[in-house]
Amino acid sequence: MSDVAPGLILRETEPDNLEYPFSNLEVDGPITPNGRFYIRDHFNPPEIDRKTWRLSLQGAVAHSIELSLEDIKTFPRVTHTALLECSGNSRAFLTPKKEGVAWELGGLGCARWTGVSLATILDRAGVNASAVEIVLEGADHGTPEKTNKPKGEIHYAHSLPMADARRPEVLLAYEMNGEALPDAHGGPLRAIVPGWYAMASVKWLRRILVMERPFHGYFQTVEYAYWAAQNGAPPERVPITRLPVKSQIARPAMREVIAAGSNYRVFGAAWAADSAIAKVEVSSDGGKTWGRAKLLGEAFDHAWRLWEFEWQPKDTGTYTLLSRATDAQGHTQPAEHDQDHEAYIIHHTLPITVMVEVA
Amino acid sequence: MSDVAPGLILRETEPDNLEYPFSNLEVDGPITPNGRFYIRDHFNPPEIDRKTWRLSLQGAVAHSIELSLEDIKTFPRVTHTALLECSGNSRAFLTPKKEGVAWELGGLGCARWTGVSLATILDRAGVNASAVEIVLEGADHGTPEKTNKPKGEIHYAHSLPMADARRPEVLLAYEMNGEALPDAHGGPLRAIVPGWYAMASVKWLRRILVMERPFHGYFQTVEYAYWAAQNGAPPERVPITRLPVKSQIARPAMREVIAAGSNYRVFGAAWAADSAIAKVEVSSDGGKTWGRAKLLGEAFDHAWRLWEFEWQPKDTGTYTLLSRATDAQGHTQPAEHDQDHEAYIIHHTLPITVMVEVA
Repeated sequence: MSDVAPGLILRETEPDNLEYPFSNLEVDGPITPNGRFYIRDHFNPPEIDRKTWRLSLQGAVAHSIELSLEDIKTFPRVTHTALLECSGNSRAFLTPKKEGVAWELGGLGCARWTGVSLATILDRAGVNASAVEIVLEGADHGTPEKTNKPKGEIHYAHSLPMADARRPEVLLAYEMNGEALPDAHGGPLRAIVPGWYAMASVKWLRRILVMERPFHGYFQTVEYAYWAAQNGAPPERVPITRLPVKSQIARPAMREVIAAGSNYRVFGAAWAADSAIAKVEVSSDGGKTWGRAKLLGEAFDHAWRLWEFEWQPKDTGTYTLLSRATDAQGHTQPAEHDQDHEAYIIHHTLPITVMVEVA
Repeated sequence: MSDVAPGLILRETEPDNLEYPFSNLEVDGPITPNGRFYIRDHFNPPEIDRKTWRLSLQGAVAHSIELSLEDIKTFPRVTHTALLECSGNSRAFLTPKKEGVAWELGGLGCARWTGVSLATILDRAGVNASAVEIVLEGADHGTPEKTNKPKGEIHYAHSLPMADARRPEVLLAYEMNGEALPDAHGGPLRAIVPGWYAMASVKWLRRILVMERPFHGYFQTVEYAYWAAQNGAPPERVPITRLPVKSQIARPAMREVIAAGSNYRVFGAAWAADSAIAKVEVSSDGGKTWGRAKLLGEAFDHAWRLWEFEWQPKDTGTYTLLSRATDAQGHTQPAEHDQDHEAYIIHHTLPITVMVEVA
């Protein structure tokens, strides 16, 4: 078990799966502290000696390269604030219960990541014109859980299409919120792929493989994938990619007791992969009526936007609160989970039930 | 259960999976009669009215088209002899036992197929330069067996890369050995993809979909696929494609009793996807020593080549016969099943055990 995560909610151990207590968002603010950032591991963290560690870049490149952490730090330094969310976050809200880690609201966090643009490193090696994808491979390895899996141990690995890999905000990060990237978060070096679910932000990077054909590894065909009929074709196995629009209520927490007649500040966050948040609405009657929340602070690409909503519950009783975000492109959170997404991409309006009692 | 298959070995019913009694090869000769051709169905055969049936061609084409059987017969008529083999053929030889239909030696057959070149039909619709694959979709539908599957019913479907689809011998066949293609074998129209395992030769065709990206359907990601680490990449899910070199002994049959001192004609077939058979060797001592078999008849691309070998067992006892083919490119059958291929691509030298007794 990790020693960097006091105050996290334990979901699983061996390997660690630790949840951010999302009701702390108001206290923590828009940047999640390192010690409270959620942890989603697939295998136990690898033992890495930062002195001898190297990143290798191989495949369809002009010249393979090996870089030490010092080498990587000689490239232009880029800092980007980005939300990471597990594609199974909010799974605990699904009924019937689905397979997988039962995240409530805290399988996510937002940090300031510093490193080098992946595009810079790709240019350094000289990517062949025929290249179509890159595989990000971690040093963590083990035997996956599902029955349909490769024989023996595999390394965690995930690919990106070349156009996504070359976006300037895609980083190889060695700092998190101004500190050296902690071991528990993929140190010495991890990928940060803003706008994508976090399964693409591979931790403990050891190798980048440039491929001339699409990659079909375990973590994008068996796990982190679902069946979908696209463009009139028969159903296909589709990998999970970008974050859709979503909001969550941090306060009140589930089953919180609130005084009747009080002024309660409903507080939460909203985000979308490739768009700003245009508005957030809040309902205190299970979705019958909605009021507009106030967006707080500034909007940053790939970060969440915090919001607040004043609520004065008059009558005692049980209330179901919902928040509903709409992005600048007009996409709004759905009212129900899309069953085709199976146990992933859970971004519908999530009900928070509270009790209003006599003060 | 099908009414066209007297004398076939029942492996499964609902849907039909019926095996050719391969020990009949010497009697039947190089062209398997329609009534003895093996049947491998994934779902129950669809009910098709040949009068109203249409093939539609859609997707990345200049103009979508719909063709009746009469329309299809107006295109140039092509006849090609091709072996079809189920990619699970010889699965009964695997230990430990593997999941799937337990074919012995007869999950295969060779017929003369008549129809139109798929390339001709593609040209008729005008395929966009951006197209990379075609999906062949059957009218048969149902719920697949494995747990990792799409929701609800799907149609049987399989794709081909465009270069393979355009090979002139890839047919849309409406005749089998000079007769109208029987319902049990995919009538009125099926694909024939010579050189590929038979899962690509989609029966009961109803639609051809031209795609601008690779297709990842159930029958090439969950079934008919295996895990392999290719070109230094982490393990990936790889679809089954071409037939490797293989031979099988038809006579003697497994556990046949042979008279000591007799002249026995060992008889069998050999084939390879994209190459002629250069030689077949036979061992009667479990692989210690080998003698050269005589290749019979002419060599035809994508058909099997029959062969014979004179054997005079002198002493009584139990013998293990093996046959081993080598193709013109120098590929030889391996001695053991490649475990990475799981329950598919079973093309190692298969032991046939016989008893030699006093005449």
